[in-house]
Amino acid sequence: MAFKYNRLDKNDVALLMVDHQSGLLSLVRDFSPDDFKNNVLALADIAKFFDIPTILTTSFEDGPNGPMVPELKEMFPDAPYFPRPGQINCWDNEDFVKAVKATGKKQLLIAGVVTDVCVAFPTLSALEEGYEVFVVTDASGTFNPVTRDAAWSRMEQAGAQLMNWFAVGGELHRDWRNDIEGFGGILAKHLPHYANLMQSFSAQKG
Amino acid sequence: MAFKYNRLDKNDVALLMVDHQSGLLSLVRDFSPDDFKNNVLALADIAKFFDIPTILTTSFEDGPNGPMVPELKEMFPDAPYFPRPGQINCWDNEDFVKAVKATGKKQLLIAGVVTDVCVAFPTLSALEEGYEVFVVTDASGTFNPVTRDAAWSRMEQAGAQLMNWFAVGGELHRDWRNDIEGFGGILAKHLPHYANLMQSFSAQKG
Amino acid sequence: MAFKYNRLDKNDVALLMVDHQSGLLSLVRDFSPDDFKNNVLALADIAKFFDIPTILTTSFEDGPNGPMVPELKEMFPDAPYFPRPGQINCWDNEDFVKAVKATGKKQLLIAGVVTDVCVAFPTLSALEEGYEVFVVTDASGTFNPVTRDAAWSRMEQAGAQLMNWFAVGGELHRDWRNDIEGFGGILAKHLPHYANLMQSFSAQKG
Amino acid sequence: MAFKYNRLDKNDVALLMVDHQSGLLSLVRDFSPDDFKNNVLALADIAKFFDIPTILTTSFEDGPNGPMVPELKEMFPDAPYFPRPGQINCWDNEDFVKAVKATGKKQLLIAGVVTDVCVAFPTLSALEEGYEVFVVTDASGTFNPVTRDAAWSRMEQAGAQLMNWFAVGGELHRDWRNDIEGFGGILAKHLPHYANLMQSFSAQKG
Amino acid sequence: MAFKYNRLDKNDVALLMVDHQSGLLSLVRDFSPDDFKNNVLALADIAKFFDIPTILTTSFEDGPNGPMVPELKEMFPDAPYFPRPGQINCWDNEDFVKAVKATGKKQLLIAGVVTDVCVAFPTLSALEEGYEVFVVTDASGTFNPVTRDAAWSRMEQAGAQLMNWFAVGGELHRDWRNDIEGFGGILAKHLPHYANLMQSFSAQKG
Amino acid sequence: MAFKYNRLDKNDVALLMVDHQSGLLSLVRDFSPDDFKNNVLALADIAKFFDIPTILTTSFEDGPNGPMVPELKEMFPDAPYFPRPGQINCWDNEDFVKAVKATGKKQLLIAGVVTDVCVAFPTLSALEEGYEVFVVTDASGTFNPVTRDAAWSRMEQAGAQLMNWFAVGGELHRDWRNDIEGFGGILAKHLPHYANLMQSFSAQKG
Amino acid sequence: MAFKYNRLDKNDVALLMVDHQSGLLSLVRDFSPDDFKNNVLALADIAKFFDIPTILTTSFEDGPNGPMVPELKEMFPDAPYFPRPGQINCWDNEDFVKAVKATGKKQLLIAGVVTDVCVAFPTLSALEEGYEVFVVTDASGTFNPVTRDAAWSRMEQAGAQLMNWFAVGGELHRDWRNDIEGFGGILAKHLPHYANLMQSFSAQKG
Amino acid sequence: MAFKYNRLDKNDVALLMVDHQSGLLSLVRDFSPDDFKNNVLALADIAKFFDIPTILTTSFEDGPNGPMVPELKEMFPDAPYFPRPGQINCWDNEDFVKAVKATGKKQLLIAGVVTDVCVAFPTLSALEEGYEVFVVTDASGTFNPVTRDAAWSRMEQAGAQLMNWFAVGGELHRDWRNDIEGFGGILAKHLPHYANLMQSFSAQKG
Repeated sequence: MAFKYNRLDKNDVALLMVDHQSGLLSLVRDFSPDDFKNNVLALADIAKFFDIPTILTTSFEDGPNGPMVPELKEMFPDAPYFPRPGQINCWDNEDFVKAVKATGKKQLLIAGVVTDVCVAFPTLSALEEGYEVFVVTDASGTFNPVTRDAAWSRMEQAGAQLMNWFAVGGELHRDWRNDIEGFGGILAKHLPHYANLMQSFSAQKG
Repeated sequence: MAFKYNRLDKNDVALLMVDHQSGLLSLVRDFSPDDFKNNVLALADIAKFFDIPTILTTSFEDGPNGPMVPELKEMFPDAPYFPRPGQINCWDNEDFVKAVKATGKKQLLIAGVVTDVCVAFPTLSALEEGYEVFVVTDASGTFNPVTRDAAWSRMEQAGAQLMNWFAVGGELHRDWRNDIEGFGGILAKHLPHYANLMQSFSAQKG
Repeated sequence: MAFKYNRLDKNDVALLMVDHQSGLLSLVRDFSPDDFKNNVLALADIAKFFDIPTILTTSFEDGPNGPMVPELKEMFPDAPYFPRPGQINCWDNEDFVKAVKATGKKQLLIAGVVTDVCVAFPTLSALEEGYEVFVVTDASGTFNPVTRDAAWSRMEQAGAQLMNWFAVGGELHRDWRNDIEGFGGILAKHLPHYANLMQSFSAQKG
Repeated sequence: MAFKYNRLDKNDVALLMVDHQSGLLSLVRDFSPDDFKNNVLALADIAKFFDIPTILTTSFEDGPNGPMVPELKEMFPDAPYFPRPGQINCWDNEDFVKAVKATGKKQLLIAGVVTDVCVAFPTLSALEEGYEVFVVTDASGTFNPVTRDAAWSRMEQAGAQLMNWFAVGGELHRDWRNDIEGFGGILAKHLPHYANLMQSFSAQKG
Repeated sequence: MAFKYNRLDKNDVALLMVDHQSGLLSLVRDFSPDDFKNNVLALADIAKFFDIPTILTTSFEDGPNGPMVPELKEMFPDAPYFPRPGQINCWDNEDFVKAVKATGKKQLLIAGVVTDVCVAFPTLSALEEGYEVFVVTDASGTFNPVTRDAAWSRMEQAGAQLMNWFAVGGELHRDWRNDIEGFGGILAKHLPHYANLMQSFSAQKG
Repeated sequence: MAFKYNRLDKNDVALLMVDHQSGLLSLVRDFSPDDFKNNVLALADIAKFFDIPTILTTSFEDGPNGPMVPELKEMFPDAPYFPRPGQINCWDNEDFVKAVKATGKKQLLIAGVVTDVCVAFPTLSALEEGYEVFVVTDASGTFNPVTRDAAWSRMEQAGAQLMNWFAVGGELHRDWRNDIEGFGGILAKHLPHYANLMQSFSAQKG
Repeated sequence: MAFKYNRLDKNDVALLMVDHQSGLLSLVRDFSPDDFKNNVLALADIAKFFDIPTILTTSFEDGPNGPMVPELKEMFPDAPYFPRPGQINCWDNEDFVKAVKATGKKQLLIAGVVTDVCVAFPTLSALEEGYEVFVVTDASGTFNPVTRDAAWSRMEQAGAQLMNWFAVGGELHRDWRNDIEGFGGILAKHLPHYANLMQSFSAQKG
Repeated sequence: MAFKYNRLDKNDVALLMVDHQSGLLSLVRDFSPDDFKNNVLALADIAKFFDIPTILTTSFEDGPNGPMVPELKEMFPDAPYFPRPGQINCWDNEDFVKAVKATGKKQLLIAGVVTDVCVAFPTLSALEEGYEVFVVTDASGTFNPVTRDAAWSRMEQAGAQLMNWFAVGGELHRDWRNDIEGFGGILAKHLPHYANLMQSFSAQKG
């Protein structure tokens, strides 16, 4: 009955970015706007750095929900991209699921807006299909902390694991020596106080 | 041992509205009065929209607990309505349970005041009888957040799922194309910032 | 050196509603969306109830800031309305100031989005011109509470008085007997727990 | 231009208890119900202890606002009591003001529900008439902390002093030796942790 | 695998009050002093009302921890009382456990100070021995909310149920008709806003 | 005795950036690291945009306080720069004060780390010398909110005005038409949700 | 009418430590126990470092209030020490005031427990006698933040300045070069993250 | 299926202190600096007191992360110490794991910085290898409470138990009589208000 620690494996994981759209983002109020933008872009940088297959999707992007944030589109110009015509749970979009399956990965990182719908629904669907699901908690946002807590509860209960982007990066990287500069660069960009440590260090080392 | 995702199914779900009474509502302090009123009415609008069998009940409504809020009565004029003569757990009221069973549904949405009693007790009773129970967290209120947390813990432990009204709506609707106008109307009415997005959109589309 | 209590006087006051626009509203995060919407509409209802001259203005409404919220437009169809071509401080718009002066009132109620700019700037300008200014604190919103605190400090320092919409209503009405039903109706509509008290009361009085 | 410290003087102060009514109390959400009840009764005990002339008033007590809380009525059976027929500012009630003036005191302690109306309005009126006004902050309650902050700001600006009940008690008593047992008894009753200190002390002294 | 709802049963439950001592209480900072005192006494009143066997214990009461709060001693003059000579987990005190077993009850309500030690340790011990344990969350206190959260997590994991005193009372009482006056009296005493509802009700019913 | 509104005037204002150093920044805990970094850089962008004379200073930058953050150095390569050898109040550094006076400006914007020392001390010094001082509240940080509140109080008392960076920008710009693109660019860069509005707008306008 | 910046002057200031007693400290709940202990000892270290005349006083130390904390007694063995027989305002104790006057200082630093009584009362008394009073905000504690806010308001209104211990230290020291090691040592001892900066620095400098 | 309570056993437990380094500590923002320093040193004192095998490790200590805090090094001069050359999860360092296994203990206490990486990763690894893992929650810190909550969730899900340092101490000590002075000394040093109780006690006992 022992616990089995299936670590995030950069060779066996895909990232799903769900509904980070300019309109929907105005609904996110469980993070400050600066924090949330930083978290989403940090996760994207991590996916790029580890060359993780990334799939983008949006809901009704021609309406009030607005287009996917341009930074994501620019960072993943060749990623499979599914503007859904109406399905609320992106897992109900057959093309999207096909693309997920085509990656051949067993582990899924899921982040999105809003947590209780756009993240929770595909998380439960993917768990049902046997995927290991890691919800990226701080790159997923919703109306307020109470709503987030309920959504987390439902996903935990179903077996999803909750991880912040920094933990995702660390578990994928495993050893600084794999690329000190590269990984350090991501931290410097997205953790202002880590950047400060680096700057003090280099000033003091001379 | 795989997780099975039994989604909310509009054809297999009933809604129980428990003790939303004018007196008891003054005890609710884990939501602002405006937020809570909005959440309760949003859930009611969702039930109407999807034509979900709804059952109303009150506790001691001739005493200090006060009458059920008039908006609910008006919205569900023909719903089974059980002013309980004394049972604290509405599941102890035989007529109420008969009405629940008469719906023939396997899934129950439960919301009420206060969360730790009027919601938690029937939730545990219904779980024991094999129902899938979805507690509507933000249409249920209680004395303070610490009390809410304990009540949530007890219900989760027993297998209840926690969902906010917006997630309930999304999981029932499944696809915007089933009725864009109708569903959008509910969001516009109960999510002020979504209404703003819609207004900007229509102004800008011209 | 004694303090002089110049009460809000329904015959000597005008209301300025500044930049309650669908886009700008998404920036407001020092109130929940439900609370803020309710506060703004409550203030509008009060202005209607007491027949207070009301002046509306917007900033760049053809751009991302979006149109004025439709409820305000509908409530004040004949009010002077100034979509400003560029001035950030609405007091820099001559037509607007002319309209204010044309009211002939000495007291100004000001509410707007965001507090630190669209409210603070005309407040300081109006104080300089000798108006008594009452900032309606809960119908004015901004990025976060820290920003609000700084904005309040600057306006207080200049002599503005801070009042919530309920206090504005009470100070204008002065005596319930002037119109019990009318004033009670506003409270019932915008203070859910006051509505509950009224409902319990009427149920119990029979 | 030096500051003059006019201390609370038990021989020159009157207490005004404004609208602590069973209905209105349900609106108070800037204190927990237990804390607020304790604070109000502590202030009442202090008034009794120092034999301070106390004047009670209510607003529309036959309607939804409800009757004055019974503890206050019982504690001050002979106090002047003014159920106002409609005036929102109790200072607009001539009988009330006459009673205040009849005390012959220069200092007024004012507490009430809600802070922004029932406390702020008579505070400003009394300041205008030259009284020194001390608002008892924790025996006065309102809708939420943001509303309280605005109300405090307006009263401070006009010259009112803000004091909690414990500070009121200490400033009136001046020296424990005036009545150690009596004053200690009030603290033991209304400061649970002070009661604990006293109990540990007496247990340990033996 | 269905959930079994073993409700609190007034004929099969005992209450353990652990280390509510005058010194230790000064460490409790996850509730306000007024709230915590009220919660502890409310739980005690419930135990008296339902005639639940109650066992009291203290840790080192002759030292800095101080004596048990006098209200509890007075309310349960004949209850088994175990001043422990040194055991931190009261379940390590054989006499205490014997007394628990002598009650013949299968369900245990446990409350104490501090939650992470004086409550968590006997909770885990009792669960191991097969008792159903209900931790009374708001009559148990500790250093801060973060400590409380960790302690709750450990107890939940082991199978304890978390309940606030009001839910305990409701689950034991089951039906208001068993004793309307008696149960209502407890609520009136320990829920100030419920008392307000009752007072408005009786005033309005006349 | 009327209030005089001396607006920020881009032709009569200088900016002092005090001790934004990599070591000292780790002490700032009244803003999230992302928010604070964004605020500081937004203020710097505003100074650049309006061509405001900017003076930089650091305290003991060869020690643990660390070097000035590199972004500021890069943005203001030609600005007067004063690494102070020991003076805690930068106004005690004669060269710094000379540089301030050399700007010939009457208004000073001051931001720094930590608020209670590096901002408050030069603020009080500059007020004494007759400058109008505007503290940029959200580009100044300190240990915690309680410390910030005390520091704000002291500066307000002395006559400083508190403004967030967005209000500074708006008061300097005065009219969008002075440079719509330029000013909008700063907002898009430093207000993520304003960027979202702009993106939705341009998508919807097509 | 210009502001005059009377800086704290180590040659013209005395420190009053009022009622930091083991019993009273259990009432302080606006700071965590660790933070408050650290703040009080930091202020004491500053007074020692600058050789500031320090006066200690206690209220009823033979009763439940308990003895002055031993660290203070040990640090100031020769300081005038006034265990007051009953006066609540230490300024009512003639010996205490004589000792204050005997220092010949014009500036007073005052810290104590609780803020609203033991700090506020002597602050107002000293202001009346023409002293410049600096309240050390974080070495003064009380029941909760709301009480603190009211007490701060009253003292500000009377002209007291609010300063945290770190600002006091910085304003007294003026220039690091006066004693780098000594001043740095105080920071290292009482600001853990400053100690971290120093440790990183010395490790990196080698 | 009964729960088995495997208590912390001082003869069967080892402590792992992971990455408490001067640089990394500046990232910890879910505790105040004073609280966190106190918690870490309290845990260290407990390990010393019970003679628990302790293993120290650091990540990249020659870089910006900085050296291990000197207090820990001084307290455990002979403890196995592993400055890791690059592994992020210390369990990936073979020497470290060998040292853990060499202790021959089944229970592991783990504390570190940051919780979501340096604590969570070895916790999951150790659980997989069959250790009972107790995360010391308040001697582990991270970026903010939301990150902490997600990390706690992941570790709980895997079977780790969450305990604060005080609960660890109590569960190890079991009975005060094993060493009253010694255990009391730790509490006095790290729980300021417990120290106050002890001081009042000894003063009052005489």
